[in-house]
Order: sequence, then structure tokens, then C-alpha cells
Amino acid sequence: MITELISVGTEILLGNIINTNAAFLAEKCALLGLSLYHQSVVGDNEERLADQLQTSIGRSDVVILSGGLGPTKDDITKEVAARVMNLPLIEDLHTKKRIKNYFKSTGAKIITDNNWKQAVIPEGSIVIDNDNGTAPGIIIEKDGKTVILLPGPPNELISMFNKDISPYLNKLQPETICSCMVKLCGLGESYVETQIADLIENQTNPSIAPYAKTGEVHLRITAKAADEKEAEKLITPMVKELKERFGNNIYTTQENESLEETIIQLLKERELTLTTAESCTGGLLAARFTNVPGVSEVYRQGFVTYSNKAKRKMLDVKKNTLKECGAVSEKTAKEMAKNSAFITGSDIGVSITGIAGPGGATDEKPVGLVYIACCYHSQIMVKEFRLKGDRNKIREYSVVKALILLRECILENK
Amino acid sequence: MITELISVGTEILLGNIINTNAAFLAEKCALLGLSLYHQSVVGDNEERLADQLQTSIGRSDVVILSGGLGPTKDDITKEVAARVMNLPLIEDLHTKKRIKNYFKSTGAKIITDNNWKQAVIPEGSIVIDNDNGTAPGIIIEKDGKTVILLPGPPNELISMFNKDISPYLNKLQPETICSCMVKLCGLGESYVETQIADLIENQTNPSIAPYAKTGEVHLRITAKAADEKEAEKLITPMVKELKERFGNNIYTTQENESLEETIIQLLKERELTLTTAESCTGGLLAARFTNVPGVSEVYRQGFVTYSNKAKRKMLDVKKNTLKECGAVSEKTAKEMAKNSAFITGSDIGVSITGIAGPGGATDEKPVGLVYIACCYHSQIMVKEFRLKGDRNKIREYSVVKALILLRECILENK
Repeated sequence: MITELISVGTEILLGNIINTNAAFLAEKCALLGLSLYHQSVVGDNEERLADQLQTSIGRSDVVILSGGLGPTKDDITKEVAARVMNLPLIEDLHTKKRIKNYFKSTGAKIITDNNWKQAVIPEGSIVIDNDNGTAPGIIIEKDGKTVILLPGPPNELISMFNKDISPYLNKLQPETICSCMVKLCGLGESYVETQIADLIENQTNPSIAPYAKTGEVHLRITAKAADEKEAEKLITPMVKELKERFGNNIYTTQENESLEETIIQLLKERELTLTTAESCTGGLLAARFTNVPGVSEVYRQGFVTYSNKAKRKMLDVKKNTLKECGAVSEKTAKEMAKNSAFITGSDIGVSITGIAGPGGATDEKPVGLVYIACCYHSQIMVKEFRLKGDRNKIREYSVVKALILLRECILENK
Repeated sequence: MITELISVGTEILLGNIINTNAAFLAEKCALLGLSLYHQSVVGDNEERLADQLQTSIGRSDVVILSGGLGPTKDDITKEVAARVMNLPLIEDLHTKKRIKNYFKSTGAKIITDNNWKQAVIPEGSIVIDNDNGTAPGIIIEKDGKTVILLPGPPNELISMFNKDISPYLNKLQPETICSCMVKLCGLGESYVETQIADLIENQTNPSIAPYAKTGEVHLRITAKAADEKEAEKLITPMVKELKERFGNNIYTTQENESLEETIIQLLKERELTLTTAESCTGGLLAARFTNVPGVSEVYRQGFVTYSNKAKRKMLDVKKNTLKECGAVSEKTAKEMAKNSAFITGSDIGVSITGIAGPGGATDEKPVGLVYIACCYHSQIMVKEFRLKGDRNKIREYSVVKALILLRECILENK
């Protein structure tokens, strides 16, 4: 089934907003097994939107439009779609009621008249309730074509797509498509690809596709079958095969689980506590942990020791260590990890010290040189990295490398 | 001049990559005064790309394509453009030499044959050197239309556009366009818009447009004139007018300067040092400061005190304060700020404590309740916020609010 996307909105067209909706919808449609050949962006302009929609309906079976469903004059997507599909607009009482209740729940005293525009729909279309806003989604089926209208705000669009549009599209297909994401850390992309070259070469159903993320590789397994259960049956042996090949380098097979979440889970299971001591990453590692709700059970505090003095005063790094080996050294990283754990009474201390650049490099210590240490009940692991990229990239990579070392350290100490 | 963008690449089409190039190019083109009506994405498919390019050339004066210039078989943009424009492909010796030198500089011993594909150009086209890779940019001018081909990797595309394409496009225009970004903090978007309603209403040349960022409002002033000097003359009085209306709420008029950079600059000028004490933001504020190169002069260390125990042990927050007022309270925020400055010997301490959710809320203390304090030589300012959004958003907003309070505090203590 040929599907295409039209993003509507002058802010996207002029680059004030990055089009994350299109990436989300495209990825989801591809996972559903739909064939995507075109994406377009048009502004809030009736004629150009009508032209684009006409072209898209001409060449695709399903056209998904996002944006332009709001209450203002600029919002014209629904009106244009109704005109192109030759359908009258009628008031939908169910949606009108929902809008009323929505405003009531926010405590709003006045509902301005323009809001009722959102309760108008093309006759005969399917209304998709919006749990996070006032503009409903709309599915129009006519003459063998399907046009789907979704609101522009990402939180509204994503939840609506996952809850209602995805099952709808799946039903349009003769087969059910299921997929599973196997997430690996600690291995390079090209190494992983070599290790599964035979699987990629011989793939039919399920298929397997690698995606490189910062410091990680994700493998998407996708199966087509008569129903979900049959699809699962095809996926399970492939996951098993990957687990045999990559063992502990697989940190999760859950779509939405991040590396830090699996680590926090490991720490909770083993009743271990953790602290961080950061120099060049200056709080990024701590921020990554503290973005996980409920982390306080295992992560209670961290140090940002950017200067040498701070490393001495806050973390008791020896004056001699800093003088003889320097702040960016194996020895400093070790002392930071060990002392941070000791000072806070944590089971584990993780430290990062390095040169993120652009300044601060010497002949022996180039930009990108980073030491990461992990101290687990006085046993210390330390690693040296030579990372590539700009300041941002080096800091980001350092954090992932620290997460990977930490995970390794927990898994080794059973 | 009507301009449009075509992004080429199956990875963008299928949503594996977010299309940041399109946002970058669109914003730049809009700033140059070009009229943008369409953006499209097509995969690495000859027929569909040729169709799209034909359509685009038919309706626009300038078509900018990005991606698909590399050495692999998938890379077909140049070949398709030459075919559509009816131009033969010829070898460009200058580019061939550059590719040879590029590989030499990276220490590569073998240059695989497919790389020479990148030295082939449509006859009569203008070659734009690529300082960050091997595929050159190409400008084709024919029959009053201009087709510009740019490499897909963002670092190659951005630097090439800024250095060569932007001046080229500016010359195509009868007038020069210049712009200036006035960045405000501490004021809401709707308040700012009300304050400049008359300027927006009466705008001709220069024009003025507001953009809302997290916790900030940016005003873009754009002028058209015969040359840059004349354009500057139009912009200057508008900036002066805005400075009169918004005073200290304007933190910079520099396009690329961030709020934290202006604060670090202020601290450097006044020879002040800073520390941070974070609870709910758990390192995000520290990470924002430490992402600025050269920050170590003013920012040397910070605390992540996520648990009550950490607040007591690391920051000497009183047991009674935590017991009677709670961790999320004005009093705790004040003690965190004051004590962090005292313990580290810093001139200023900034603290954040709040409920980022989704858990941890009570009837009196809802998700989004955040206290931020700033202690400057023992004088303390503290503010209460009730922020909206999910965990991520609340943490992000808290950091901006802390930056704004810190800036206010520095400016008040002359």
C-alpha cells in the first residue's frame, strides 16, 4: 500500500520548526510495512495545499497530513481536504462536547468562538478523539483512497497515532506486521554488521535492519504474518539467535527502554547505590540518570568537579596525582571514582575526566582523550578513550562510554 | 525569487534520520528573502527523483537538493540532475586533485575506485569545494533556472552553504538582506508581542518577527537595502527602539550567543565565581554551563543533591528545614544556594529544587512546583515557579528560569 506524508505549516516550511513529526510518522509507517515514496511540506496556503493533496491522492493509496487543524484562521487543512475530496463539512456533536469538557477541565472560563471550528468534520469521516488537545484527528475514506488528518503538536500526534491510527492502518493491510528492537552497547556498528552479515544476506521473514545511535547499535527485527501471534513466532527465534551471538552486549529488547534505565533497574535489583564524579561532561551523566523517574532509590548525589581545586577539595584527589599525571589521567579518574563512592557511602562511583576541546589540548593529550573509571566496592576498572568530534559530541560519547563501563562493571560483579 | 528544497535519501524518507538539513536551509533561505513554497523528500530512486526535480524546476526559480552526492551506487542526485537538465557529465580535474589530497591527509593508503565518481560534474556547472568531505557542491544554471546540489552530511552542508551558497544566492537577488536577532529573557511571549504590536502592525522595512524558545523570546529584525551598509542603517534604530522598550530583558543581539554564554561573560567581566546545587534538574544546569568552552575561569564545581541525605551531608541543609518545610521549599532552596557558595568559596551559588514528576506530588506540592534561589555574597533571591509539561519539559524550564534569576541577580549587584 503506497503511503505518503504532507506536513502543513509555514513554521515548518520556513525552518522555524524541525520536522520531527515527519520522521516519527515515516518510521512508524515503514514499520507497518507501508511503502513510502514521498514526503512534502507546504505552508498554510489553500491553493498550494490543495494542489499538493491532489497530486498525492493521485499517486498514493493513503495520504497522511499533519498540522493545520487548530482553531485559528491559518488552520486550513480540514477545509482544503474536504474541498479536494468533495465532501461537505458538518458539525460533530460528540467532538463539540469533548471540546467543552476539555476547556472545563483546564479551568478556562471563556471558550472563544473560533474553537468550535474544531468540531466541524467532512461528512462521513471517522473522528479520532484527541486525548491531549482539542482538535480531533480525522480519517476520510473515498473512492479507494484514504486521507488521514492529524494535529500538529507532537504529543497530540504521537499518542493519537499509536492509539488509533496505527491499528487502523494495520487493518488495511492483508498481513499483520510486528517488530522488536534488540539494543546493543559496547560494540561498533561495522563489527555488529559483520557478525550478522549472514542473517542480513538470507533475510526474508523476519527481516533485520541495523541502526547506529551514539555509542549503541539497534537491530530492528520485523515479521509479517496472518496475526500477531504468528508474527511473534517468527521473531522469537531471531531474538534468540542474536542473544547467542551478542550475549551481554544486548542490554534490552524493549522498544522504549534506554541504556540508563536498564542500568538503574540492575542497580535496584541488586540493591546497589551509585554516585557520579564528572569533569569534562560537567553534569551530563548525572542529568541522564536523574531524567529517569524513581532514580532516587539508587542515585542520590553527584559531583561536578571541573577545576583541579574542586577535584582536590570535593573528591580528595591527591595533589601529587594532579601534579604528576594531570587532571586528565588514569590515576585521577581512578581516585575520582573511588573517593566519590567513599565520601558518599555509595556502592559504586563512576568518574569521567577528559579534554572536550576546542582548547586544553597538548601534544600528549589531544582533544578527545577521555578517562572513565568505575569503582565497585573498592575494585576499580578504568578505560582510556580517544573520541572524535566537536565538544558536544565528545561530551555525549563520554557519557555513553561511562554508562557502558558501569553496566559491564555491575554485570561482572555478581 | 521562488526557491524550493528537495531532500534526497531513503534514510530521511523512512524516518531513520530527522531532516535537520531542510530546517537549516529553509531558515537560511527565508532570511535571504527568498520565497519558499515547497519542501520535498524522495528516496534514492532515479525515476521519482527525476519526476520531483522536473516538477520543482517547473514551479520554482531555484531548486536546492541535498544528499545523494557520495561515492556509492545509491548516490544518484548528480546523475539525475544532469539528465533532467540535459547536460553531459565530465571529469573535473580540480576536484579529482582535491579528493586525492583529502585522502592523503587522512592517512588512507587506498582510494577505492568509486570515489572518483565524486569528481564528475555536469558540464558548465560551478564547483563548490567541500572543506569537510570529498563530494563537492555543484551549481547548475540553465534556461533561467538554478539547481544547487549539496552533500547530505550536515557539517559539510552547513559550512558549504554559509561560505559559498549564501553569498551566491544573495547576489541573485536585486537587494541585499540583512538581519539581526534580539534575544529576550524573563518575559512571556504574549507580553512581548503586545509590547511590539505597533511595530509589527506598521512594519515595512525592516520587518520584525517573534520566535518563542523555551523560556525566551527572540525577535528577528530583517532589512532589505541596496547594500549591507544601508541595511544596517535600517536595522540600528529598530534595535535601539527595542532596547528602550525591553531594557535589561534583552540579553544579546548576537545571532549565536546563548543565555549561558552571556552570563559567563558577565561573570568574567566582574571576576565572579559560581557554583550550582541541583535537585530535580540533577546536573542539567551544570551541563549547560560546562558546555561553554573556557567556563572553568568562573565555574569550577557543582553539586547534584538528589536525596534529602545528600542535601544534608553535601550542602549542610538543616535537618529541621527538610523536616518542617520539605525538600521542595523556599527555605531549602535558600540554604542550598547559600551553603554551596560558602562550601566552595564561590561568589555566587544557584540552587534548584522541585517536583519534576510524574511521581512525588502531594496536594500542596503539585508536579511542576519548583524553587530557585541565588545567593550573591550572602544576599539571597528566591523564586517560586509552577511549571507545566512532562518531566523533561519541567527540568528544561527550571534550568532556563535559574539562568534568568542568576542573570538578574548579577545585574542588580553592580
